[in-house]
Amino acid sequence: MGTIVVGYVPKPEGHAALARAVEEAKLRGAQLVVVNSHRGGRDFDDEDAVKTEEQLAEVRSRLADSGVEAEVRQLVRGMDPADDLIKVADEIGAEFIVIGLRRRSPVGKLILGSNAQRVLLDATCPVLAVKAEG
Amino acid sequence: MGTIVVGYVPKPEGHAALARAVEEAKLRGAQLVVVNSHRGGRDFDDEDAVKTEEQLAEVRSRLADSGVEAEVRQLVRGMDPADDLIKVADEIGAEFIVIGLRRRSPVGKLILGSNAQRVLLDATCPVLAVKAEG
Repeated sequence: MGTIVVGYVPKPEGHAALARAVEEAKLRGAQLVVVNSHRGGRDFDDEDAVKTEEQLAEVRSRLADSGVEAEVRQLVRGMDPADDLIKVADEIGAEFIVIGLRRRSPVGKLILGSNAQRVLLDATCPVLAVKAEG
Repeated sequence: MGTIVVGYVPKPEGHAALARAVEEAKLRGAQLVVVNSHRGGRDFDDEDAVKTEEQLAEVRSRLADSGVEAEVRQLVRGMDPADDLIKVADEIGAEFIVIGLRRRSPVGKLILGSNAQRVLLDATCPVLAVKAEG
């Protein structure tokens, strides 16, 4: 059974990535590994941890409803989200990685976020980039 | 029947994108539109045109062998490849776009090509980014 890795953040682009990853997993009969990564440290306090846990509980419930075999990994180990995502994908030999991208505003600067660029450049597997709903 | 748009250049990353697009088309029962775009003008002379035509003939033959319903469009209309690709995808309501990315060398700079960034940022549909074989 193939595995699809998806980077999840509780934002519109994260929801879009998750929704698409579920569709792809159904299409391919693949399983999902949802990665929610925080660098940790001073920027991630107890309140953040509780809030994140609530959000991930919602994700788990949505995944259970989808019927797709899925695992949610919350990683707080001092790594950039891009590194966590690439590492997990490599370890499990993922078919591909799904990431969400923000929609560019009409006057938005022409630049991709550094995490998205890192994943696109450094992942050994293909990367499916999905836009948040407009 | 869904349609997948793939950006083709006669380079390792273009071959990787095409190969993956064929796989995805088979999996989904979708058809392919292969876009080979040149800005044209002084940088694209008769010799380039002949060479490109040879390369695209090879692509057409490979697609015929694959059994996937496919169309090859060579566009020389003064547009950047990214704009051509996005425009074609919008016009036909593509399911997603497949693009090839070069592999970064160990000392390579952390930057995506401007065409790849444009497609990733401005396409309204998802974008599957595939690495050239190592």
